[in-house]
Amino acid sequence: MNADGENHRPIWLDAQDPRVVKIIDQRLLPHRFQVVDLTTVDHVITAICEMYVRGAPLVGVTGAYGVYLAALAQEGEGDDFLGDACRRLRSARPTAVNLTWAVDAMWQVGLAGDGGLARVERLKVKAQEIAEKEADNCRRIGLHGLGLLERASGAKGGRTVHILTHCNAGWLACVEYGTATAPIYAAFDRGIDVHVWVDETRPLNQGARLTAWELGRRGVPHTVVTDNAGGHLMQRGMVDMVLVGTDRTTCTGDVANKIGTYLKALAARDNGVPFYVALPSSTIDWDMTDGVREVPIEERDPHEVRFVQGLHEGSIVEVLVPPASSPAANFAFDVTPARLVTALITERGVCAANPEAIRSLFPESHP
Amino acid sequence: MNADGENHRPIWLDAQDPRVVKIIDQRLLPHRFQVVDLTTVDHVITAICEMYVRGAPLVGVTGAYGVYLAALAQEGEGDDFLGDACRRLRSARPTAVNLTWAVDAMWQVGLAGDGGLARVERLKVKAQEIAEKEADNCRRIGLHGLGLLERASGAKGGRTVHILTHCNAGWLACVEYGTATAPIYAAFDRGIDVHVWVDETRPLNQGARLTAWELGRRGVPHTVVTDNAGGHLMQRGMVDMVLVGTDRTTCTGDVANKIGTYLKALAARDNGVPFYVALPSSTIDWDMTDGVREVPIEERDPHEVRFVQGLHEGSIVEVLVPPASSPAANFAFDVTPARLVTALITERGVCAANPEAIRSLFPESHP
Repeated sequence: MNADGENHRPIWLDAQDPRVVKIIDQRLLPHRFQVVDLTTVDHVITAICEMYVRGAPLVGVTGAYGVYLAALAQEGEGDDFLGDACRRLRSARPTAVNLTWAVDAMWQVGLAGDGGLARVERLKVKAQEIAEKEADNCRRIGLHGLGLLERASGAKGGRTVHILTHCNAGWLACVEYGTATAPIYAAFDRGIDVHVWVDETRPLNQGARLTAWELGRRGVPHTVVTDNAGGHLMQRGMVDMVLVGTDRTTCTGDVANKIGTYLKALAARDNGVPFYVALPSSTIDWDMTDGVREVPIEERDPHEVRFVQGLHEGSIVEVLVPPASSPAANFAFDVTPARLVTALITERGVCAANPEAIRSLFPESHP
Repeated sequence: MNADGENHRPIWLDAQDPRVVKIIDQRLLPHRFQVVDLTTVDHVITAICEMYVRGAPLVGVTGAYGVYLAALAQEGEGDDFLGDACRRLRSARPTAVNLTWAVDAMWQVGLAGDGGLARVERLKVKAQEIAEKEADNCRRIGLHGLGLLERASGAKGGRTVHILTHCNAGWLACVEYGTATAPIYAAFDRGIDVHVWVDETRPLNQGARLTAWELGRRGVPHTVVTDNAGGHLMQRGMVDMVLVGTDRTTCTGDVANKIGTYLKALAARDNGVPFYVALPSSTIDWDMTDGVREVPIEERDPHEVRFVQGLHEGSIVEVLVPPASSPAANFAFDVTPARLVTALITERGVCAANPEAIRSLFPESHP
């Protein structure tokens, strides 16, 4: 149950017509709730690149449905066609490893067994399985993270636990529950007194637009702040923990996440505030050991920095902020080194951000 | 010469009518250049509170002109009236100490000597003197800071020196030259290859709106980035120094400046990037020793966080970003502890951010 008694997910297969994948167009939230149909792999690539959908787990699931739609278009014939679709889907966005992971998993299923309609059916089942698995992983992240919030609440004698989060790592990013929000929702549902400081998360304001919308619809107390505010809040003792998601985590515990996350991790360290990262293991890159050097950081269109979108007289419009002649740059992610991460919250439990601890939770996964 | 061959200042006394103080309405830049007349102390208080003018040195100068206008309205009669005006002006904004400093200096001049028109004339001269003094201080800051940029350029064999700045500490904030921008303009004028990363500086975007406008009009290469980007830029070796202004510096070297400055100082420290703060001594609070505990941090209207102003179809409009029902908080400043400050650049030279070094530059000022 994600909001207002309506059990929305950010992506689902149309119950009437399984050739149609439906998504919420997240570019328009919170001001307009609009569902978009995806019926071709090109639609899917556009939806990922232009961020109708975003968030590492959801991008992975959308990519998986993209492989299914590609096979459907050819009725499952032709490995070349499918391989080409997989390549294009993988490169739609570079930073989240879930996209590569999910598309690769689909490709393996596509290869293994008969072609034709049997393959289409196999891919449909696999895409749905990936979606359900991500939802279940987030549910488990919520249960494991709940313990941290319960302890924080206990340490404060039940007074409000203040959590700062950056970007949107909610159900909109993750099929269900969210990653960073899962422990918050779990705690809220159990009556723990929580309050969330929501970083607005420039340039695309996923915090102000999406996290605030999610939390508001669930009735979770929250306050929107600028990305600049977190250091001050921590310095004044107004934050009990930072809790964020991630787009790619190295097997050594370095965390790539929305640009600005690293700054919050530094402030947390400087003020003795725990800094937690919630992630399904699909986000772990088992081949990467040095996040700062190795994670490819997407550079997006400077238009996203120069213009801000919002509601004006009932319409969604964009306004230009800097001089028209001033150039801008738009790095979409940064990397928080493992040394600044207090713990990772995964579907299998909470662990330290180091190779040994991660390996002990996922002994079968590392290379 | 501040821009485009036009020698603008952000504040000046009307040459035709000395009962009129003229200011640039900085709320409308860069999209509209509009000059506003201030003729009463109430005008002045509104201009300061609503940020037609902003920036610690300029707020001080504007406050000084406010005392002059208050005396003018009564033709200099009545200490009570003047004292009341001074009290109201001092409390127009809480964080910048320059306002208190300038108003107090005016009050002393008001008390010392004859009343009536003689007092009005004395206050006019004093306000202009404060303005000229701040302009000259900024010129000196530029010359002292120039050495740091020359050394950085030399160390890179003349390759581009990349400077990150936050908010606007330019001539718009300071009568002339600016504080943080003064060394940049001085270096640029001497042919040193500089490039400025301009933090947009939410919520009011003084970086994207004002610093980018100033730099663009002078032809200084610059790139606007979100406030989130600085950590990533420093991690990747793309910043040679951080250079910011301040609204209040304790006599121990703690630096209150626009919210978010502290986060950049942390990133600078984590990446071995020098973090410089440029300030006229009017910004030093000689009575304060612990910035984090003592500096009053202004909390402004959450409207400034919830709405973003910019240009849409030729008009300046505001757009709502988060859900209409989500609350927001708006802390305007934060404090960077002295331990994170590489050096202070003052009108008397560069010094370490510690009480002894500051005292040695300003032996007459400390309590």
